[in-house]
Amino acid sequence: MICASSGQSLSLLTDFYQLTMAQAYWKTGNANKEAVFHLSFRQNPFQGGFAIFCGLSHMIEFLERFQFDDSDISYLRSQKAADDTALFSEDFLEYLQSMKLTCDIDCLPEGSVTFAHEPVIRVIGPIIQGQILETYLLNTINFQTLIATKAARVRLAAGKKRLIEFGLRRAQGADGALSASWACYIGGVDCTSNVLAGKVYGIPVVGTLSHSWVMSFENELESFKAYASAMPNNCVLLVDTYNTLEGVHKAVEAGQWLRERGHKLLGIRLDSGDLAYLSIEARKILDANGFNDSFIVASNDLDEHVIDSLNDQGALIDVWAVGTKMVTAYDQPSLGGVYKLAAIRTKPEPWQYKIKLSEQVAKISTPGIQQIRRYLDPAGNFIGDMIYDENSVPAEAVLTLVDPTDFTRRRKMPTTSKYLDMLVPVFRSGSLVYDRPEVQSIREYASNQLSLLHPSIKRLLNPHEYPVGLESTLHNLKTELILAARARSEKIADNPS
Amino acid sequence: MICASSGQSLSLLTDFYQLTMAQAYWKTGNANKEAVFHLSFRQNPFQGGFAIFCGLSHMIEFLERFQFDDSDISYLRSQKAADDTALFSEDFLEYLQSMKLTCDIDCLPEGSVTFAHEPVIRVIGPIIQGQILETYLLNTINFQTLIATKAARVRLAAGKKRLIEFGLRRAQGADGALSASWACYIGGVDCTSNVLAGKVYGIPVVGTLSHSWVMSFENELESFKAYASAMPNNCVLLVDTYNTLEGVHKAVEAGQWLRERGHKLLGIRLDSGDLAYLSIEARKILDANGFNDSFIVASNDLDEHVIDSLNDQGALIDVWAVGTKMVTAYDQPSLGGVYKLAAIRTKPEPWQYKIKLSEQVAKISTPGIQQIRRYLDPAGNFIGDMIYDENSVPAEAVLTLVDPTDFTRRRKMPTTSKYLDMLVPVFRSGSLVYDRPEVQSIREYASNQLSLLHPSIKRLLNPHEYPVGLESTLHNLKTELILAARARSEKIADNPS
Repeated sequence: MICASSGQSLSLLTDFYQLTMAQAYWKTGNANKEAVFHLSFRQNPFQGGFAIFCGLSHMIEFLERFQFDDSDISYLRSQKAADDTALFSEDFLEYLQSMKLTCDIDCLPEGSVTFAHEPVIRVIGPIIQGQILETYLLNTINFQTLIATKAARVRLAAGKKRLIEFGLRRAQGADGALSASWACYIGGVDCTSNVLAGKVYGIPVVGTLSHSWVMSFENELESFKAYASAMPNNCVLLVDTYNTLEGVHKAVEAGQWLRERGHKLLGIRLDSGDLAYLSIEARKILDANGFNDSFIVASNDLDEHVIDSLNDQGALIDVWAVGTKMVTAYDQPSLGGVYKLAAIRTKPEPWQYKIKLSEQVAKISTPGIQQIRRYLDPAGNFIGDMIYDENSVPAEAVLTLVDPTDFTRRRKMPTTSKYLDMLVPVFRSGSLVYDRPEVQSIREYASNQLSLLHPSIKRLLNPHEYPVGLESTLHNLKTELILAARARSEKIADNPS
Repeated sequence: MICASSGQSLSLLTDFYQLTMAQAYWKTGNANKEAVFHLSFRQNPFQGGFAIFCGLSHMIEFLERFQFDDSDISYLRSQKAADDTALFSEDFLEYLQSMKLTCDIDCLPEGSVTFAHEPVIRVIGPIIQGQILETYLLNTINFQTLIATKAARVRLAAGKKRLIEFGLRRAQGADGALSASWACYIGGVDCTSNVLAGKVYGIPVVGTLSHSWVMSFENELESFKAYASAMPNNCVLLVDTYNTLEGVHKAVEAGQWLRERGHKLLGIRLDSGDLAYLSIEARKILDANGFNDSFIVASNDLDEHVIDSLNDQGALIDVWAVGTKMVTAYDQPSLGGVYKLAAIRTKPEPWQYKIKLSEQVAKISTPGIQQIRRYLDPAGNFIGDMIYDENSVPAEAVLTLVDPTDFTRRRKMPTTSKYLDMLVPVFRSGSLVYDRPEVQSIREYASNQLSLLHPSIKRLLNPHEYPVGLESTLHNLKTELILAARARSEKIADNPS
């Protein structure tokens, strides 16, 4: 198991074609051509209005350790081609083993609000390096951005109520759980049940007892009192092992027992049944016995929509514990991020801008050395994002933003508006130049970012679309490249029509 | 990042409540009560007729390394209760650090065909240990069983065609990708693009080139010839960067160039558009130019249903490359496995059988010390599985199997039938007693298991239900326990009705 292997190099966590291409770039003398790659996604996840960029901290750790070690090289040496000759040459393997990253990498700060079509990472450097990094960057950013966004949506539904992540047992593997705990915390969750995430990331952890505790005793009341006596200062009782409301009465008895000894019943947990009805009835029983301060935790296949619905039904739930549906992003378990070549050159020649065609407009890549300019209203709220080419910022007083998928939709932005350029330098010539914030700061930053977004864009269903556009010079350049590429390849129609 | 941390202990990869309960078991003198836990799932995934048990190899590695180290204990020592006192006592932490696993663990062999309600893992030992292991076992078995089952379904759709796993970039984290590569291979995939999975697990890896390779050259033909010259013995050309059929013609030109030099165009890859139409047209172009041996690879959001549909349309595809939808189990990204206490005792007292109630029949746990008996027809094909209690095997000539969710459905099984008891000893008193098979053998075993299952049960849509039943003594015992538990907790109705 990779995660337990001590000191296992992760540099081979990449697609094999990155390495066959790497050798081919190297053999054809192209390895050090300078290339620009952008990582972006084509649709906001969950049919929502935004995403929370996440995964930067993990990416930095990966890149700082990046180096092919002896075992990596031995493994590659063992690879054979179809004709059973060695696939990789010794001189290439030597080159690979001595390779140090020299790229410039710019990224959104972790926790930034972002939108479809925006470059969230920009890699500039030798094409061979940009290529080898592609797969890891996609794996990490796709997953963590997906989960941070899901958690932000659950947080929106939960409002100011306490929110716990409970996903470890049904997450997609060890790291699927661990990095999900990280991303959920960034997205707005308060704590996790995942102890390793607590240890490794410094996220608060919580937990009390399960059904098996209750079942291991002669009866429910005995089990509650036993837990209360053993852990008098951490007592949240799970009440649905046999019959929920009967269980609440037993919890009240245990609570009285605790109270007599100077302790407190912190709360109860409901894990099945009609959570609206049961929480209202449980609240009555607790209050009638003077346990007004004891909270009610609810769990059981929750997500933002179930929480919304339970709130609408007047459920009296103080703490939401959300697992599977959040950590696996159950309704959309993958973000379709892509990593596209946007320009190439042999220094000091000028950049050659590049494009990939597709029948679907949203799948055509955007050329240039891209940056995101986020415009702010006088109060600092976000009013629109412009994707522009750093090498050709027009000097006009009013800039035009062209919708990336419908060029007839345009928006003017006066250059007198306040703005922020969102991509910040993280690596320069392969060295980290970025001051990594602590997890708490990243979480606060994400929360602040969301507060600057209009509520209509944060709506869970049918949100308003936040304005994102290509600056018109870049749009025009892209259009020219598309037309030129189509003209070159128009001899044969792809479709039966 | 956990996976890169050298030698990071994974023993805290558990839910916090396992440790608070552990302390409570210990403080109340119950830690060494002997308990029986079973891991099972309530529904076959993907509305299918079966599952492939997977994750045992990873579980064994985890258990063999299991030990709380100094850093784990320091972390637990730092945890505070609500009243800001230390949550864990020093003597408990000392106990935890010196704890060695002493459980007996029985499992299905990895790659076994299994079905809803069956115990796939049985843990017998001190309740404190069974409890602490719960979360890791669920995380690993849930995910890998889900993905191996998905891969087996894709394999069923692909028939004997070559099948590649391409999921790394959109999987759920590093281990979500890596352990998915393992599970997909067990489930029947031939190779992966994930180089680290190749290195760590010995799975064959493949790959050639991407769109960015093509885009980095002046034009497509130049890019193909450059790759062909650099990697003449590994040449599969991606033809859809600009216009697919035009791309096939360019690939033919590059193939002729290769042929003149004594090499071979292995194949082409289609990654977008109408794969049925394009594969048929591409085949014509290849054949017309004497490239009858060059294969056609197809990729682009494939799953078992898309492959089925393309086959129905007469697509001429030789190699299927499946990514996101397989490694994330996109249509059902989590398996709802549970781990339930089934019996407890203080040695040498007899077992007390245990049950958890629920309004839903399928969610009521099954008591006993369970084993699965799989009956075979004379040819060795599977005809039905009986879940029975090892401590009470009836001596009758004909046994009755009772459906776990509908007790009126019953089936007789003559004890003269051939059978296999499926759970095998893996750990005894905490020591590994199981001869771990190589990955190739596990994969062959899985394939053989599937071949012994009637085709109607392997149907992708609306499969026939394989007979699984509780042996009637066990069923009767379960019924008595349910009635007794309900009688004890019947004072208050849970529901508004």
